[in-house]
Amino acid sequence: MTNDVKTDSSVADMMDAIGRSARLAAVSNARSTTADRNRALGLMAAAIRGDADNILAANTIDVDDGKRRELSAPMLDRLMLDTGRIEAMAAGIEAIANLPEPVGRVMAEWERPNGMVIQRVSVPLGVIGIIYESRPNVTADAAALCLKSGNAAILRGGSESFRSSGAIYECIRVGLSAAGMDENAVQMIPTSDRAAVGYMLSSMAEWIDVVVPRGGKGLIKRVQEDARVPVIGHLDGICHVYLHAAADPDMAREIAVNAKMRRTGICGAAETLLVDQAIANTILPDVAQALLAAGCEIRGDEAVQALLAAAQPADDSDWSTEYLDAIISVRIVADIDAAIRHIGDYGSGHTECIVTGDDAAAAQFLGDVDSAIVLHNVSTQFADGGEFGMGAEIGIATGRVHARGPVGAEQLTSYKYVVRGSGQVRD
Amino acid sequence: MTNDVKTDSSVADMMDAIGRSARLAAVSNARSTTADRNRALGLMAAAIRGDADNILAANTIDVDDGKRRELSAPMLDRLMLDTGRIEAMAAGIEAIANLPEPVGRVMAEWERPNGMVIQRVSVPLGVIGIIYESRPNVTADAAALCLKSGNAAILRGGSESFRSSGAIYECIRVGLSAAGMDENAVQMIPTSDRAAVGYMLSSMAEWIDVVVPRGGKGLIKRVQEDARVPVIGHLDGICHVYLHAAADPDMAREIAVNAKMRRTGICGAAETLLVDQAIANTILPDVAQALLAAGCEIRGDEAVQALLAAAQPADDSDWSTEYLDAIISVRIVADIDAAIRHIGDYGSGHTECIVTGDDAAAAQFLGDVDSAIVLHNVSTQFADGGEFGMGAEIGIATGRVHARGPVGAEQLTSYKYVVRGSGQVRD
Repeated sequence: MTNDVKTDSSVADMMDAIGRSARLAAVSNARSTTADRNRALGLMAAAIRGDADNILAANTIDVDDGKRRELSAPMLDRLMLDTGRIEAMAAGIEAIANLPEPVGRVMAEWERPNGMVIQRVSVPLGVIGIIYESRPNVTADAAALCLKSGNAAILRGGSESFRSSGAIYECIRVGLSAAGMDENAVQMIPTSDRAAVGYMLSSMAEWIDVVVPRGGKGLIKRVQEDARVPVIGHLDGICHVYLHAAADPDMAREIAVNAKMRRTGICGAAETLLVDQAIANTILPDVAQALLAAGCEIRGDEAVQALLAAAQPADDSDWSTEYLDAIISVRIVADIDAAIRHIGDYGSGHTECIVTGDDAAAAQFLGDVDSAIVLHNVSTQFADGGEFGMGAEIGIATGRVHARGPVGAEQLTSYKYVVRGSGQVRD
Repeated sequence: MTNDVKTDSSVADMMDAIGRSARLAAVSNARSTTADRNRALGLMAAAIRGDADNILAANTIDVDDGKRRELSAPMLDRLMLDTGRIEAMAAGIEAIANLPEPVGRVMAEWERPNGMVIQRVSVPLGVIGIIYESRPNVTADAAALCLKSGNAAILRGGSESFRSSGAIYECIRVGLSAAGMDENAVQMIPTSDRAAVGYMLSSMAEWIDVVVPRGGKGLIKRVQEDARVPVIGHLDGICHVYLHAAADPDMAREIAVNAKMRRTGICGAAETLLVDQAIANTILPDVAQALLAAGCEIRGDEAVQALLAAAQPADDSDWSTEYLDAIISVRIVADIDAAIRHIGDYGSGHTECIVTGDDAAAAQFLGDVDSAIVLHNVSTQFADGGEFGMGAEIGIATGRVHARGPVGAEQLTSYKYVVRGSGQVRD
């Protein structure tokens, strides 16, 4: 059995204790007040700011270790913290505190002919397991989003960022404790033993309501194979920018360069540029020049190679590759239908952009491209819960069940039906 | 491996062909118009009415077989069709056609400070696998709900209802075809080979977006163990009626009898009656008398046995048992807190009712009981998508992810984010 992980009983005991206390904390958090939870979030942000030096020191050790272990440049970029990123983390928690209360919202209300009044009311999901890799700020974002939405969180960070995440986690517990909340509302698995992840996925359905994995293909594949609890799925971000025949040349260049090069290590970075053949001669050379000037490698199909001396050859695997690096694959397509077909065949359902001045073409693209986020004249780098105004995100879901796109506090809720009557019985 | 089903290659080939054509039909259904889908639904309902004699004849064979195989009375009740149930099936499809369009709804819209306008828009889930047991009307309800919400459906009915479901399925294909829709939008697996279910759960993640199981514990357990695709979970309906100290005596009696006895074989039937000790002497004898008169067996704790000569003894397992039969377990509880605790300890998170004239007690119960449906002064037998005004339901979800409570057309959608800008790039 894939899930028959050899787990020594001490790991099982430890994980069961974490699960049991998380369940109790979830019940108590679900009954806490908005004011309590927001005060805890404010105190967490303050603790992170106050403890920035410790967090940076821990991060330096992680980064040095990562360099010794020859982590890739994008991975080191995700791992690395500086004062700006720490301030962003604290500000993100405060932004989450300032979001509307996600729990107890009356999402719908109607009355039946027999006089029953039915409400659909948002409630917390319960206990959320988050399994992530190198990005230490996930520790803060995930904890804050889970707390805001009345849930308990069990965090399992990657070994690469173990010390950084641990330092951030200490600040979270300080905030919970100072606010008088149950500290077990956020717990971090205190070992990098892989058996703990196996046990979490296969044997904790009683304690964990949903697992959110954040990381590379290996992690996602393992979670999908082993999980006996619901998963909010995150796959690759093979994001496309399509320059339509009616694209404005300057906008095309600026969006293409920003979507690819602003930050290459994030899942919303563009990986493939599709160029309508009607504008390949006029617009592509300028766009390519700007990409090259920004330090980007171009891999093109034969038509692209014929136009651009600097283009390396792309083979079929390039269309399915998430480089997460300063590389872009470029393909010339016959028309918008071919662009939509290419995205359907090779995309990962994450984020795709059309650049065009033609509203009918935009409407077709936005309607027919079946991805979590579809954009018209906007850089794919905006595929982010913070940029969407959600305060922060626990990740971008590419699955279709429960949540799709940025997963923020609102997406970490379930709901129940509340029905009020006056003695109705059914015929 | 639990999912290493021995599948002969002919089953795999057949299932892959079904999956592939379902995916194509889902894309075409997602792009069909509201009018097309509603016309197909109307034609399906007409075909079912026109073909009622055939459906009844097929059902008679299934029921006779079921009697020979000594199916339980509740199972035979679920299997049995009559002209009333066939008319209800056709009317249910028409009610679904008349529901608001679930796809393309703008669920939320906001503008960001940089001018981007973000919409969350509902889209179909994709391909939905429905695995069910004896109830043949699931064939019609599931097909209609999936079609209405722009999805494709792959149906796997139980062997008990194989002929009845097949006859209903023929009417569905007639409707699709007459409306000019892709007939593969609804497919039924044409074999009762169990390997087909194993393959569906373990090896069709490419073709199936979500599986909805409907049936007993054995089926649910198998699906949860083997599924490599997301599951919208349905567990037992261990539903409670709590008669609070401030319950009206007549309402208490009427709701208790209706919740238990109107139809004992449905998941919303009450299984346990909790009686506040403050009214045990005054109200319980009358309620018990009415239950006994309706043919219900009573199993009580010691306090109940002391009050009611007719009560059989209940042991601890009774509190966790879904009888689906004319049996009710009765327990006297100290107060509302004890009632809520009992439901938390033994309930299945389905549907619970409080009978009380005290609004504060009702508010506490509705807030703190963590079930999909919580009711005040309403029979639990209303736990049903049709009774909620959803036209019909594909089942009642007791999981917390994606959908909870009755799963209707709206719950069979996902969403995507549509973002419109004017050249925004990210700093």
